[in-house]
Amino acid sequence: GALSGLGLALGLWRRQVALAAAREDEEEKELRQRFMAPPVSGLRELRRRRRELRSRMELLIMETQAEVCRALAALDPGASFAVDSWERKEGGGGISCVLQDGEVFEKAGVNVSVVSGLLSEEAARQMRSRGKSLKAKDGKLPFCAMGVSSVIHPKNPHVPTMHFNYRYFEIEEADGTKQWWFGGGTDLTPTYLNEEDAVHFHKTLKEACDKHDLKLYPKYKKWCDDYFYIKHRGERRGIGGIFFDDVDSPSKEEVFQFVKSCAKAVVPCYIPIVKKHCHDSFTPEEKLWQQLRRGRYVEFNLVYDRGTKFGLLTPGSRIESILMSLPLTARWEYMHTPPESSKEAEILEVLRNPKDWVR
Amino acid sequence: GALSGLGLALGLWRRQVALAAAREDEEEKELRQRFMAPPVSGLRELRRRRRELRSRMELLIMETQAEVCRALAALDPGASFAVDSWERKEGGGGISCVLQDGEVFEKAGVNVSVVSGLLSEEAARQMRSRGKSLKAKDGKLPFCAMGVSSVIHPKNPHVPTMHFNYRYFEIEEADGTKQWWFGGGTDLTPTYLNEEDAVHFHKTLKEACDKHDLKLYPKYKKWCDDYFYIKHRGERRGIGGIFFDDVDSPSKEEVFQFVKSCAKAVVPCYIPIVKKHCHDSFTPEEKLWQQLRRGRYVEFNLVYDRGTKFGLLTPGSRIESILMSLPLTARWEYMHTPPESSKEAEILEVLRNPKDWVR
Repeated sequence: GALSGLGLALGLWRRQVALAAAREDEEEKELRQRFMAPPVSGLRELRRRRRELRSRMELLIMETQAEVCRALAALDPGASFAVDSWERKEGGGGISCVLQDGEVFEKAGVNVSVVSGLLSEEAARQMRSRGKSLKAKDGKLPFCAMGVSSVIHPKNPHVPTMHFNYRYFEIEEADGTKQWWFGGGTDLTPTYLNEEDAVHFHKTLKEACDKHDLKLYPKYKKWCDDYFYIKHRGERRGIGGIFFDDVDSPSKEEVFQFVKSCAKAVVPCYIPIVKKHCHDSFTPEEKLWQQLRRGRYVEFNLVYDRGTKFGLLTPGSRIESILMSLPLTARWEYMHTPPESSKEAEILEVLRNPKDWVR
Repeated sequence: GALSGLGLALGLWRRQVALAAAREDEEEKELRQRFMAPPVSGLRELRRRRRELRSRMELLIMETQAEVCRALAALDPGASFAVDSWERKEGGGGISCVLQDGEVFEKAGVNVSVVSGLLSEEAARQMRSRGKSLKAKDGKLPFCAMGVSSVIHPKNPHVPTMHFNYRYFEIEEADGTKQWWFGGGTDLTPTYLNEEDAVHFHKTLKEACDKHDLKLYPKYKKWCDDYFYIKHRGERRGIGGIFFDDVDSPSKEEVFQFVKSCAKAVVPCYIPIVKKHCHDSFTPEEKLWQQLRRGRYVEFNLVYDRGTKFGLLTPGSRIESILMSLPLTARWEYMHTPPESSKEAEILEVLRNPKDWVR
């Protein structure tokens, strides 16, 4: 009768609750395994719109963050990443993972951000390096910007600093058409030149590029040398790598696949170099030269870097995540000039006149 | 006869040579006593046009440089100032005096520059903060810019960093009329707040201002708090002082006299504070907080400071003299937040909400 019907309904309901709980457990487990923290857009939402490029890119940047953090943490067993999930009042948020003052790494930050909202026409124009025109409705443009960015400053002066960033933008114009583009790059900043490392780094990047188009590596290698130029010093920040911005051809899918190859190349590019040198012995003079080079790194980031400048000027941006890129320590000496034919002069020469490391 | 006439001429000539040599000796002696190096425009040229404001200002900035360097050197007997005279290809030059890694001072730089040449209309507009219009002949404007600028970073975290800069500009328009203006300021950046020092510093500046016009101190104190604002941090660089730019009234003579009073106030503003604290004991934690504050100093100078940005973008400017303002060492920690009611939180509060130190 009524009671057994109620019993049946109760049984079904209990089963559903148990299933939902199991699903949540499963999701929790998956999140813990795959990512450093739950994605900004939520795992369920990302699954729901799994075919959209926005979702696939968000999963890629989350995976890249986790992959890199785990590879770094494995090399610095005493230290661990602090994980901060943050929200942006104006829409979206991010996850910042920072390891500070470890045995191997002085400061290693890997940041994911997924933000959206409305842009002024002026701000939208500034976001595109080539400044394409954008037609806004009521002066405002709905946008979505996401990316993973990272700077790794090791302690040992024989282990280079590494930076990478992969990002995706979408802007909706007044007539509903969507403009989209990708940007990114991976580059190396050694304190001392090690040709073998330079070749390994560039070769790994070249292989990632070559899978998609043989023209990409030479083009983006040059773009990198041009972008990371500290004009007032006449030096590049480091020995380069690849850099690209505002890329919207040949197709969304093809650019995404290229970006994915680049993101997957970060660990094989860099981790072998860290492993090789993190136990190298070094002198106080070598540490000092590293500190001076850190100073130049700060100069580039604060004076020239478009991402940093854009971030500092954007209301509601998370300053700690932007300035995570700065080294833990840096030094500026008046009129420091290394002696001719020294190891310090050797790296300066390469920073002044970039070389081709692979052909 | 002829021979005795020749002897007489020879005698006169010898006498003249001896007089000229004595004059040169005298000049040498005067230069050594008064200045750190011979002035850019030459002592004789400055004497020749001694009534012109340009000459009087150049002598004032040279005297200020020497006064400050000597007062600092007297407090740091083991160290000494390196003096570099440099020329600017495009016209003019400067004298940079730097003391590095002393007992009392980590880095102390006092720089004089006197440059002249032709400016583009665009560059001329950028030089004036209020952007007055300037009529150029053939798109070029003859200009003259001179100033003394200095940043003193002491070692002891209980001795504050001090900065000052006094400058004069002249631009000649197409019709021959000359626009001129003065700028400058003196400001203090302590690691920890010491109210007595803050009051002494501001009081000394106020007295210098009050001799000229009672309105000046309040106006330039506020301008200083507004100018040294690190927008992305919501903090001022320090506890202020005075700052002014683009001042061209009531008259050239009156503004010059005001600037002179300010320049003469630098030593009495600052030196007593250094003397009072340079032997204070400090903990490693206090030194660390100083390093983090040095990081903020770098952020302000590279991201916001108009003088630094203008210098870095100006072709032919001497980078080492511009970046002399950066501390020897700095530090950036991710998410560093001092505990509530700590001494570190106390100074942050004042940097976020500037106070009136004298009335």
